[in-house]
Amino acid sequence: MTHLILAVNSGSSSLKFELFSMPDEITLAKGLFERLGTGSALFTLQADGNKYRVTLPISNHQQAADYLLDALVKHGIVTALATISGVGHRVAHGGEYFKDSALIDPSSLAEIEKLGDLAPSHNPINARGIRAFSRRLPQAVTVGVFDTSFHQTLGEAGYLYPLPYRYYADYGIRRYGFHGTSHKYVGETCARLMGRDSRQLRMISCHLGNGASLCAIQNGLSVATTMGFTPLAGLMMGTRCGDIDPSILPFIAERENKSAQQLLEIMNNQSGLLGISGISNDCRDIVNAVTAGHHRAELALTMFTDRIRSAIGGYAAHMGGLDAVIFTAGIGENSAEIRRRVCRNLGFFGIRLNEDKNQRHETFIQQDGAPVTVAVIPTHEELMIARDVLRVGLC
Amino acid sequence: MTHLILAVNSGSSSLKFELFSMPDEITLAKGLFERLGTGSALFTLQADGNKYRVTLPISNHQQAADYLLDALVKHGIVTALATISGVGHRVAHGGEYFKDSALIDPSSLAEIEKLGDLAPSHNPINARGIRAFSRRLPQAVTVGVFDTSFHQTLGEAGYLYPLPYRYYADYGIRRYGFHGTSHKYVGETCARLMGRDSRQLRMISCHLGNGASLCAIQNGLSVATTMGFTPLAGLMMGTRCGDIDPSILPFIAERENKSAQQLLEIMNNQSGLLGISGISNDCRDIVNAVTAGHHRAELALTMFTDRIRSAIGGYAAHMGGLDAVIFTAGIGENSAEIRRRVCRNLGFFGIRLNEDKNQRHETFIQQDGAPVTVAVIPTHEELMIARDVLRVGLC
Repeated sequence: MTHLILAVNSGSSSLKFELFSMPDEITLAKGLFERLGTGSALFTLQADGNKYRVTLPISNHQQAADYLLDALVKHGIVTALATISGVGHRVAHGGEYFKDSALIDPSSLAEIEKLGDLAPSHNPINARGIRAFSRRLPQAVTVGVFDTSFHQTLGEAGYLYPLPYRYYADYGIRRYGFHGTSHKYVGETCARLMGRDSRQLRMISCHLGNGASLCAIQNGLSVATTMGFTPLAGLMMGTRCGDIDPSILPFIAERENKSAQQLLEIMNNQSGLLGISGISNDCRDIVNAVTAGHHRAELALTMFTDRIRSAIGGYAAHMGGLDAVIFTAGIGENSAEIRRRVCRNLGFFGIRLNEDKNQRHETFIQQDGAPVTVAVIPTHEELMIARDVLRVGLC
Repeated sequence: MTHLILAVNSGSSSLKFELFSMPDEITLAKGLFERLGTGSALFTLQADGNKYRVTLPISNHQQAADYLLDALVKHGIVTALATISGVGHRVAHGGEYFKDSALIDPSSLAEIEKLGDLAPSHNPINARGIRAFSRRLPQAVTVGVFDTSFHQTLGEAGYLYPLPYRYYADYGIRRYGFHGTSHKYVGETCARLMGRDSRQLRMISCHLGNGASLCAIQNGLSVATTMGFTPLAGLMMGTRCGDIDPSILPFIAERENKSAQQLLEIMNNQSGLLGISGISNDCRDIVNAVTAGHHRAELALTMFTDRIRSAIGGYAAHMGGLDAVIFTAGIGENSAEIRRRVCRNLGFFGIRLNEDKNQRHETFIQQDGAPVTVAVIPTHEELMIARDVLRVGLC
């Protein structure tokens, strides 16, 4: 049976969507609202090879949902709203409660809002998006797909921090990990394209965008990931510092009389590639500046790729070996230079790039006969969301 | 020519010493003062196979130095103080100024005190120790041997944090690394015992005591280390948390209204093995509790060794391969169980333990023919200090 399933990703000032026919996984329409909340939102819709682009006087997620659903009918993409049988929503934080994608009912929606303690700038907005679509699509099942769920298979030793144990017991301070939907998608896709069962592979997924994380996938399960209690942790990113000596915070706080909130702002928005290079948080700008001989851009790029390379080594140790490395997301899919630098000097691990294939962004970019598969796989979180609506809500 | 050289390590409430005949590296006497500052210090002296132990009404480092020097003469260990030709002092922090051990004169002593900004609980005491011995031994050369110097060969990308660059420029916030004297000593010793030139080896030194750090040594130089701006960073330790998601600090500060100093106290003294196990910061207690089936002791031990194993993988990636892993310091030298757990599942890296040799704490504990040498090497920072006095001060 064919289902129309809408995947929705609500951000603080944006709403991204994709409408699928499932299980054949055909995209019928996709697009997004940008600059929500400014009173002058930009709406983009692609369908049937056409692209619509219009500025709208709408300012919240409910208005965006209403406009989108009406547009789907108006453009003849769906015959009636009643034909949409499921909606999947990306939700940032599922805590320890959501170990898998879940049907949304009043009780699970309350749980999502409660988890706003851990993700105050995301979960409340995700909940708002869920309410907005539910109101107009009462017949459709609603499923929440959590950025954290895939990492719920981490062992206790992998998710606890070596702090006094009560911080875990009292506040849930532990490693949650993020980008789970993406890591799961590219892991499954890579195994399929390799013609292998993911349960027999040890893979490292490198989700490298403006936010970046690595995930070690063994037996098809996440066994380690670099992001932690929050998405600040782990790798160096566009504007985030990732892991640093935690003593640095009290030191800066005392020297410059900074509040906790100001420290978070520095570490989240002024650090990473931007903080070191002093010119940009965008990898493309950094790579261009490197070509022009900019010293601190080169430094930023080296730090960025050194940390990824070390994390790959650490995960190979954690899994006791390595079968595949996957690159995905904006940087991972598009920057042959970053992939080249990350894989440099990893012959010891069986990682050997074919530089021609790398430059052409081919799916498999390792040398023939190299022990470790190196794959470039475009992530598609919306498709993963649609699949989960089908699996959890419509089977 | 033979020299009598005294190596001194001044702590906040202790003073450790060892007197060497150099260059033959014979220990003539060693011992320590404990509980300095309480008004009832405990003095221990070993020499000529005898051990003296006495409680003394002394309370500061000058009194301890005076008592020690008089005791050396009184017990006939030296014929006169004038026969001591050099004193080497361990100094915690050498910043970027001391890239090697250095002759101490008024200007370098002032520099050590200035670096008290970065090591307020160590450098001022080290300076006090230097003054105390210089006063009584005006003829002897004095050399400072810094815990940080060995790591001054880290590249810029290895020592910078991905924070706004100005924090490095303004306050010297960078990775310094510690335990340098120990890492250097065991690295050199391991290469010599292997009959190899350290410049052709890629080694990982695991200094595992109540404080713990790893160091990647390539071409005889430190190229990476786990401790950072302070000795809190990196591995999980007896009471220190090591690296954590830095967002956790503002979160706890807000929830529990903690000051910067209180957060440092929690991370330095209530975390690590103690924080997770809830029973002890001492690895021996933890291993015993594991044998008795204590769940959180097992958890603490797993977290401790997992982090070391991942760091080894990361450093193998950083160096592009691995020739030797060295275990040293209290835990590294004495716990076969910890070594066994760290090396478990690292066959992929060429690390294969011979469990019989491991249990007997032999110098080389890898299987015959294994690609990676695994060594147990007792550290001897005092000897390294004496060598540096000879190299820097008396040649």
